[in-house]
Formats: sequence, structure tokens, C-alpha cells
Amino acid sequence: MSNKPSLPQGTRDFGPEVVRKRQYILQTIRTVFELYGFQPLETPAMENLDTLMGKYGEEGDKLIFKILNNGLDNPAKEAASREAFDKVLTGKSTKDLTERALRYDLTIPFARYVAMNHGQLTFPFKRYQVQPVWRADRPQKGRYREFYQCDADVVGSRSLMNEVDLCWIYHTVFTRLGLSGYELRINSRKLLAALAEACGGAEKMMDITIAIDKLDKIGLDKVKEELATRGLDEAQIATIEKYLQIEGSNEEKLAAITELLGGSEIGNKGIEELRHVWSMMQEAPGNGDSSSRLTPQASRPHLALDFTLARGLNYYTGIIFEVKAPAEVKIGSIGGGGRYDDLTGLFGVPDVPGVGISFGVDRIYDVLEELRLFPDTVAQGTKVLFFNLGEQEGRAAWGLLQALRAEGIAGELYHESAKMDKQFKYAEKKGIPYIAIIGSRELESGTVVLKELATGKQEPVPFAALAERLGGS
Amino acid sequence: MSNKPSLPQGTRDFGPEVVRKRQYILQTIRTVFELYGFQPLETPAMENLDTLMGKYGEEGDKLIFKILNNGLDNPAKEAASREAFDKVLTGKSTKDLTERALRYDLTIPFARYVAMNHGQLTFPFKRYQVQPVWRADRPQKGRYREFYQCDADVVGSRSLMNEVDLCWIYHTVFTRLGLSGYELRINSRKLLAALAEACGGAEKMMDITIAIDKLDKIGLDKVKEELATRGLDEAQIATIEKYLQIEGSNEEKLAAITELLGGSEIGNKGIEELRHVWSMMQEAPGNGDSSSRLTPQASRPHLALDFTLARGLNYYTGIIFEVKAPAEVKIGSIGGGGRYDDLTGLFGVPDVPGVGISFGVDRIYDVLEELRLFPDTVAQGTKVLFFNLGEQEGRAAWGLLQALRAEGIAGELYHESAKMDKQFKYAEKKGIPYIAIIGSRELESGTVVLKELATGKQEPVPFAALAERLGGS
Repeated sequence: MSNKPSLPQGTRDFGPEVVRKRQYILQTIRTVFELYGFQPLETPAMENLDTLMGKYGEEGDKLIFKILNNGLDNPAKEAASREAFDKVLTGKSTKDLTERALRYDLTIPFARYVAMNHGQLTFPFKRYQVQPVWRADRPQKGRYREFYQCDADVVGSRSLMNEVDLCWIYHTVFTRLGLSGYELRINSRKLLAALAEACGGAEKMMDITIAIDKLDKIGLDKVKEELATRGLDEAQIATIEKYLQIEGSNEEKLAAITELLGGSEIGNKGIEELRHVWSMMQEAPGNGDSSSRLTPQASRPHLALDFTLARGLNYYTGIIFEVKAPAEVKIGSIGGGGRYDDLTGLFGVPDVPGVGISFGVDRIYDVLEELRLFPDTVAQGTKVLFFNLGEQEGRAAWGLLQALRAEGIAGELYHESAKMDKQFKYAEKKGIPYIAIIGSRELESGTVVLKELATGKQEPVPFAALAERLGGS
Repeated sequence: MSNKPSLPQGTRDFGPEVVRKRQYILQTIRTVFELYGFQPLETPAMENLDTLMGKYGEEGDKLIFKILNNGLDNPAKEAASREAFDKVLTGKSTKDLTERALRYDLTIPFARYVAMNHGQLTFPFKRYQVQPVWRADRPQKGRYREFYQCDADVVGSRSLMNEVDLCWIYHTVFTRLGLSGYELRINSRKLLAALAEACGGAEKMMDITIAIDKLDKIGLDKVKEELATRGLDEAQIATIEKYLQIEGSNEEKLAAITELLGGSEIGNKGIEELRHVWSMMQEAPGNGDSSSRLTPQASRPHLALDFTLARGLNYYTGIIFEVKAPAEVKIGSIGGGGRYDDLTGLFGVPDVPGVGISFGVDRIYDVLEELRLFPDTVAQGTKVLFFNLGEQEGRAAWGLLQALRAEGIAGELYHESAKMDKQFKYAEKKGIPYIAIIGSRELESGTVVLKELATGKQEPVPFAALAERLGGS
């Protein structure tokens, strides 16, 4: 059949169980953002094409989904449309054909929002945003054309307290999700700047950053090769190798980096900032969670200084973060972020510095799934199914069900009088933990036969005791 | 400045307060859907163009936002792209230029999902879906190009129990939102079919439905004129007038409609169904809410039979619903729905009947705003701001703050040591209800000066008593 329906490549339907598990992750993150004084923002799925183009590099521009203008088949507009289309074919500006596009990330729309509203906003402005973004990337395992981003940023403040809070947000979220083996790494772009200085000048910083960023993937030897290709000489490469090989405790690392780069002003600034953030992590009681899940040892962020952290080719200028999933799952980065000097300059509003972090929701989902960390109750919807055993029995069941729902207990009555077997299967397939049976005998005695599917155990429960037995909300 | 950023026409940013209020509405609706055994579904923002085209009528097709294919500037594809573009100009199929489009409603993606997954789904399948949709409508007051829909449907069941549950869902949601003056109207498309029969034949049903649907807007006389234009004769129009003028209590209305249309098989069926749903509404205890908000009188749906209800030109075949906002706000319909015979036939899977309802989230928002029904606490984020009065004081404040956050109390420390005045303004502008001041004296005595902004009242609170004083979660 030719009209068999399908989904666009790289997109996904999320059925009930997956939606519930995703909501559990997103709700945990949102709750922690709120605890730290961040406020929600939502921007539209489409932005003016102008707002997006030229913000993500040449490669990025090609991956933006553009929306075709409506009314192109209006004969009056034909000449203009044709002209516009000629421009599209040569990759030029295309306002007559498309003037809107789907959001590619949450940062540029946030910058656009701050630039448009900076007169009304209270600074520092702490916002979080949890929305889908779209990219015309080639779909492959773990890479989708529609996926959620989950960001928190503080803008209008240079205080390192923000960095400290963001570290604690990571820790609190991952602790609440039961992911105690995560690793939080930090570095400062200022050290990379100082390293570039030590290797012949600031203009080398981009080459060095690009090469270092590949260390995890290609190893030290290949990084050295790449540095050579990019024009660094042996002495410079030796300095970089020394930098990359710094090891030990955070305290030992700080000593070593001071020896290597402490002579430079910017290097010293970076070291000072890292030391400040790290020392603040040692203070204050753990606040991962007050639940029993949290052992005392796990209640403080595992913060590791990692000078090999580079965070690709973005706009960061200060402290940068990266979170790695526990090593046993081989999933890699599940979050990252950093400090930038200028969020809104592109939109004509200068001097808005800030710092932000992001959670990789799809990957966190995979980690929790692989480590079986989703609580059993997350995927549960309906708590009890009432069997429907006839007109009168059904009505009695429905009355009782309404009383349960009023107590906050999610329940259903099977939609029609049918064989017990069929009704039983419905409960089983839908993962409903309890069934409640009211036949003619139960109707007389005012009791329900309550059966727990997991154990097969069943017992009679008086109508009036059912809500308490099932535990309201 | 020419690059001043702006938003696409008909789209909106939602700042923190608005997001919180919207979430309050959506979360209330979701919770009630779950109480009634509905499960969440999420579909991608983009669908294949094939899936959407031809499903919303000729007008609808024009309002679908189409996504331009990527890679059109690839020289190898130029000839094909040009050909495709010629087709666009004449309104023809356009796969080489665009093969994806943004979702126009939640019903067609749901139908596509059910058709694709019907082998795996457990029927009756009860799903809810809360996602944005996009329409290239001319933007105007209250009409946006991006807006949320909020739907619940049961498919795979002909039982009227579903209609009863859906009425109770409306009632429970609106009661929980404090909107007791809403009006829930129901009718049956079968009565409109019977009326068409009585007026000369089933083929008149569309004309009659279209005319009746305008009654609220244009009044009875204009409806009669329209019926005449559409070819109905005087006797037929008199029958329709009689139908439209039925008044009284539900019981009286049922008697009158039985007299008018009870002779027809389909009319009788419609009457029977309405009577059944209405009688079920009289049973069972109210379950709007167990909170004090609910007075006993308000605990049962205000169900009004309304034979003038038509619900436009859609696919409904049985009972139809509409919810009107309280008359004093003049906002009109805030919800609607109905029963249909065949959801997935368009996608090659026949015999999937169902019934569904929808909530008009934007309008509900306006109603709650106008009637001041949002609880004060909804828009509240951070509960307490700690003043930052120096290095040592700031660190003490931060330690205390971490302890509060661990108890689930949302708080912030002002990001830098600054004048009290400036910090105070931050709290005020952000609507933070409490400020906590730790100066050198408080540091010594181990107390905080806690000030409530609404009353101006302030008192010293020992560090250890602060969490309890502010009330954890």
C-alpha cells in the first residue's frame, strides 16, 4: 500500500512509557533549576531567518530548517518568487521564498529575547529553558533532527558564585536521578589563552583549542601531529604536551599549572578562578537531596580539574564545564557549558556577560535506562482497573471509581461488560498494578475483590476502605 | 539600527510569569487526564507533507507551514529543484522542494501514530497530548501562528462510558481551576442527521449543519435566510426552526425532541445516547476536587442539552461537546470535542472509532486572568533572597542557603556584595517574598534578620530555625 504512513527521517514518536520517563528527567532538572532561583522562559519554534543565519558557522547555516513562505502560488507574486528561487539555488539571501526558520539551539533565541527585553529585565537574569530544537543533520544512532535542549544561564553578572551554583545544580540533579558515578570536570579558557601565549601568541589559541578538543578521540600522538600540521614548532608542542600531561589531585594540578603558566597575567587569573570555585565546593553542607538515596559521601560534587577540557569552537571565555556519564556506560558527555563575555552583542546590545550549562537529555535517558535507574513507579499511570461485569455491577464500580479519583487515585472502569479474561489482559498490557472486581456477590456484601497483579494475591476490601487501601495522593 | 531583533508575526515569547501560569493550567489538565487513565503521547513537530496535505480542506492546505528541503543549492540538484519550484508556483505537488511540514493539529498526527502502531497498542487506547501546533493564519487578537493544543481521545471503543468520563474530565479540570461558572453543552450529530432526514434527506445534513453552526453569531432570522439560499423550502425551514427553539430543562428538552424526531431510527438512537449520558451524570459522588475550593453544589457537571450545537464541519458522528466560558467574560468556547466513527481510515486502517475532547489553553488563560483566578503562589519562584554583605557574611549566607535548598526551599544569594538598596530592589522586582540579612552582628549571634516584603515585618531567626520558619516542601 503506497500511502502507508511514516515519520520524517530523524524524528521520533514518544509513546506513554517514554514520555513518562523523559518527564521524570525533565521535571527533576526543572525542580532543581527553580531551587536555585532560575526562571522559565519559552520562545517560539520559529525565528526570523535573520536571527539565526550566520550564528552557527557556515556548516550550521546549512543545517537550519527553513520554512517556505506561504502564498507562493499566488500568480501576482510569481515574478518575485522566481527571482527569490534563483537566489536559493546559488545559496544567497532568500527573503521572498523563506523568511522564517526553526530554532537551532536555545542560546541564540535567548540572546534575541534578552536583546529585545533588556530594558524590562531584572539583572542578573537567571533563566532556564527546556524546548526542542531542529537540525538537518544526517540522522544516525543517537543523533536526531528533533531533540530537546535543557539550558540554564545567568546573564548580567561576572560573579563566580554563579559557577559554583551551576556545579551544585549538576550535582543535585544527577544525585536525585541516582547517578552518583558521574564526573564533573572544569577548566578555564583563560588557561588555554595563556598556553597560546606561551606558544608564540594569542592567534594560536584557535589551533590549539581545536587540536586539544580531539584528545579523547584521537590520543596524544595524533594531537601532536595535528599541532605540527597547524604550524606549531617542537618546543611549542613540548609545552602543550607538558600542559596536557598534568596529573594528580586537584591541589597537585593547581601547583603544576602555576609552575607552567603562572607567569602570565591571564594564566594567573584562570588559576585563581578555578581555585576559588574549587574551594567553594569544599564549603557548605551537601544539598543533593534530603532523601535516603543520598549517602553522606555522595553529597558533595565530584569536581575534577581537567586542563585537557576545551569545549570545541564556541564563544566561551572563562570557566568551562563538562559532565561525563559513569565510565561503565561508554556514553561520554551528558552535559556542558561555560562562561562567555558577550551574549547579545550580535543583536546590538553590548556588555551582557554570563555563564550557562546544558543537560543532554537524550543521553541521560540512555544512561538511566542502561543502569536501570528509572524508579519503577515512573512509568506507572492507572493504579487500578475496575472490571465491568454487567449493567448494575458496572454502575456500582463506576461510583466507587469516581470516589477514588476524587482522592487522587488514577483508575479506570473497563469500557464494556466483557469476559474477565479480556479485561484482565487489558490491565496486564497497560501495566496496571491492581484490579478491582465487583460481581453480584460483592454488590450484595459491599466489598470489592482487590487483586495485586505482581503477586497474584487477592483479598476482599469493603467499599469504604478501598481508597485508603490503595493509598491516595 | 536595521538589525534590531524581532519575532515572526503571530508568535510569542513567554516570560517567567506567563510560563508559570500556563504550566499551572497544563499541569492541572494533565493530572486530571491521568486520573482518568489517559496516557501521554508526543509526536514530532514535523510530519511528512503527505501525512498532512488534504486532511484539513483546501483552506487548511494553504495554512500549513512547509519546510524547505535542505541542500537545494547543491549544483547537482539544480535541474530537479527548478522543476519542483515550477510546480510550487502552480500549487502542485512539491516533493523535491519540500517534503516536510509543521503539525497543524494533534488529531492527524495521532491518527498517523495509531495507524503505524495499531498492532502494538492496547485498545481501547486512551491518549492525551499537549503540544504546540502551527498555522499560517493571518495573525490577529487572540489568534496566533503558534499555539498549544491539549487533547484527550479514546479510540477503539464505542462505549458511552467514555463520553461520561470526558464530561467529568471537563468538570474536574474547570472546578480545580476555580472556574465554576463554565457551561458544558452536549448534543448528538445523530439528531442533526435525523433533522436532515425530516427535511428531505441525508444529503441536506451538511447545509443544515453549516447554517445552524452560525446561530450564535448571526441569529435565527439570518440562519433561516441561509437555509432558504441553500435550497430548503418553507416547511423544512419551519421544522428546523421548531428544532432550534426547543427550550426548558433537560427533561423537557428530551420530551420535545422525542416528539419532533423520535419517529426516526437515527433520531431515536441519538436521543437514547443523550439520555444515557445525562442520566449517568446524575449518579456517583462529585469528584471535582477534595479541596475546600469545591462547594457541594459545584461538585457535579452542569450538563446542558443544546440541540443548536453543531461543531462546524468536522468528522463527528455521535455525541458532541462544547464548553463555554462563564458568560461575564465574553470569551466564548474554551473547549470542545465529539465522537467520530473512523480515525485512521485515511491511513489505511479501518474501523477505529473514538471520542475526544480538547481544551482551549490560550482562552482558558485569558478567562483565569480576567476573573483573577490564578492563585497568588502560581507565579512565585524564589522564596528567599539572602543579602550579600561581604566575603565572610556572603559565605555564611551561602552555607545556610544550601541547607534551605536541600529542604526544597528555593532561594538565592545576591550575586555580589552591593548596597542593600540594590539588593532590595532585585528582590522586589523579582517578586521574592522574603529577604534574609546576615551582617557582622548576625554572624556573631548566629541569627538571620528575616523580612517579609509584603508586610515589611522583620524578625531575627536563629540559623537552625530558618528552614522551618520558611516552610520546606
